[in-house]
Amino acid sequence: MKLICEKENLLLGLNSVSRSSIGRTTNPILEGILISLKNDKVILTTNDLELGMEYTIENVDIKEEGKTVVDCRMFTDIIRKLPDGEISISLNDKNLLLIECADSKYKLSTMNADEFPLLPELNIEKNISLPQKSFKDMIKRTSFAVSSDENRPIFTGCLLDVKESSINVVAVDGFRLALRNSPVFTDTKEFKAIIPGKYLNEVCKNLLDVDDQIKIGISKNQALFEISNCKIVSRLLDGDFLDYSNVIPKDKETRIKINKVELQEAIERASIFSISAQEKEKKYPIKIYINVDDIIVSCTSQVGDAKEEVKVDMEGQELEIGFNPKYLLDALKAIEDDEIYLDFGSNISPCVIRPTTDAKFTYMVLPMRLKE
Amino acid sequence: MKLICEKENLLLGLNSVSRSSIGRTTNPILEGILISLKNDKVILTTNDLELGMEYTIENVDIKEEGKTVVDCRMFTDIIRKLPDGEISISLNDKNLLLIECADSKYKLSTMNADEFPLLPELNIEKNISLPQKSFKDMIKRTSFAVSSDENRPIFTGCLLDVKESSINVVAVDGFRLALRNSPVFTDTKEFKAIIPGKYLNEVCKNLLDVDDQIKIGISKNQALFEISNCKIVSRLLDGDFLDYSNVIPKDKETRIKINKVELQEAIERASIFSISAQEKEKKYPIKIYINVDDIIVSCTSQVGDAKEEVKVDMEGQELEIGFNPKYLLDALKAIEDDEIYLDFGSNISPCVIRPTTDAKFTYMVLPMRLKE
Repeated sequence: MKLICEKENLLLGLNSVSRSSIGRTTNPILEGILISLKNDKVILTTNDLELGMEYTIENVDIKEEGKTVVDCRMFTDIIRKLPDGEISISLNDKNLLLIECADSKYKLSTMNADEFPLLPELNIEKNISLPQKSFKDMIKRTSFAVSSDENRPIFTGCLLDVKESSINVVAVDGFRLALRNSPVFTDTKEFKAIIPGKYLNEVCKNLLDVDDQIKIGISKNQALFEISNCKIVSRLLDGDFLDYSNVIPKDKETRIKINKVELQEAIERASIFSISAQEKEKKYPIKIYINVDDIIVSCTSQVGDAKEEVKVDMEGQELEIGFNPKYLLDALKAIEDDEIYLDFGSNISPCVIRPTTDAKFTYMVLPMRLKE
Repeated sequence: MKLICEKENLLLGLNSVSRSSIGRTTNPILEGILISLKNDKVILTTNDLELGMEYTIENVDIKEEGKTVVDCRMFTDIIRKLPDGEISISLNDKNLLLIECADSKYKLSTMNADEFPLLPELNIEKNISLPQKSFKDMIKRTSFAVSSDENRPIFTGCLLDVKESSINVVAVDGFRLALRNSPVFTDTKEFKAIIPGKYLNEVCKNLLDVDDQIKIGISKNQALFEISNCKIVSRLLDGDFLDYSNVIPKDKETRIKINKVELQEAIERASIFSISAQEKEKKYPIKIYINVDDIIVSCTSQVGDAKEEVKVDMEGQELEIGFNPKYLLDALKAIEDDEIYLDFGSNISPCVIRPTTDAKFTYMVLPMRLKE
């Protein structure tokens, strides 16, 4: 096998299929990359059996067809550090991969390409498509809220809930819930699929801020994402997701309209006291006291206290309620709008956060009980 | 006590005296900052008894003189996160420090200012002064080479070696040596002092790229650095430093003149194979083979090998020699010149690196033995 290719094109493909965090395996081939040359194409594949990714580089000068597997991290590292320009890649008679570029020559030991697990052919039962930029936006605004608790694996995933040309992506971790809605094209009336959050983030890395479509197909156990030159296959998580539409409160006793940045900065400052330097394990809640014209964000720890005042428009009852500041800040960072609504029931019921001009994003967070 | 001050001015002082890495202490006052108001000045002091730093902010609106101590990290964190503008700081009748700015109010518990260890008055025996930018440059190009081995504490410091209007700053860690020379003003004929590298880096943080002078005074056990509004007192390391002038080879069998960036990039690429993914603990040397017109930089590990060719001007004998690539790269990063000399004796004697047009920097590195 032999090819000649611009470094830039090759690196684009490698960045697409190489993963920052691969699950440690005992089988080195699962940390490898399959380089396959056919006609005028280079196909790069990685697959650890949980997540498989394939990228096709077109119009390459293929001198000789063939395929091989090398360590993905090391191959990517070499290509990344080579000077810009043409790179020649070939297999020598000792089965070493030769990488040549200007005055640099590298040899890399290879693995048996026949042992590499190709991406499976999926029996697609349901499918949707939507603009790349929409799906990218959905992942970025929800996947941060998945659980990291592997004891409840179902909540380490994001729910894709499709109903009549509309999709909700939902993440929930027991303390908060993030939901983003978007229109989709679909032949399927309705379905649900749960995809590990970390794999959705790998999909996200391959999405551009463009109107070009991403196609998502769902088989019994797997999901296939097709994005221009790139195919990604992820396993699905099996089990019952939270019945989220019934947990988001529909009524409210108190609503405030508030400038997002002002609230975010006030919470960031007040939460200096939330994590105590003296008592590492302890986490103090921030307290929000809602008045008619303003809210007081405060936090008291052993070393001192913070008090921040932010102007609001308020409807309903005055209220005092506590939160873990991280969960509020995560939501505010995921919102780009200037003004937001915060809806409250009582001081033990969840708070719902929504942009005032965009009904597509909903965030719900549970309060922390305040000590008297 | 009460003062009103622009956030920006206060933060400048706090950044100067607050340390990123403070040695863990059991006495919280050593992690505190003394805020002292007198006439129209705010004096900020930190001191963990190893390193003391003091910064004076002038022309401040002092409403009431006084002093107190608060946790340095937390106070700095609050000031940094407050909105730009005027900040009012005062002590209330419960001995809490009030920090007020626009709609933000903070209270911070205080410690007894009388228990705070002030900077000692040094009995200065020797002193020098030189432009801030010169001393900054000297620290940046040497302190990276100090040893991190606390079992040989003397080599965790940089030697300041003053002789007749000239200073050498020298760092050495058993594998390599970095030396930078500069002219100085001094009343003292000659002296030596060894200052912990990490504290010199704190001094460096306070130096600007200007011709304004830094004054360095040495007492029996301590060094005093005076930089415009800032005073820093560091302890000295006690013991005999390496007799460095006798270990740097004066003769050479082989000299090459080489483009610094080309050599640096070649070593960076070849050293991909130096740290093996399969064998974490193992470190492969890079090999440099010196020919008449070029050098071959190579590295061979179990997973493959790298070969890089770089054009050189060579005088003397051909040579093959091995190195830990990190020690070569550290030196090349510390050199800004385009072209450098590498001087070699045999393949078991040290290599000396110098910029071709600047005799003020010398770096020496020991080779690694190559296996046949």
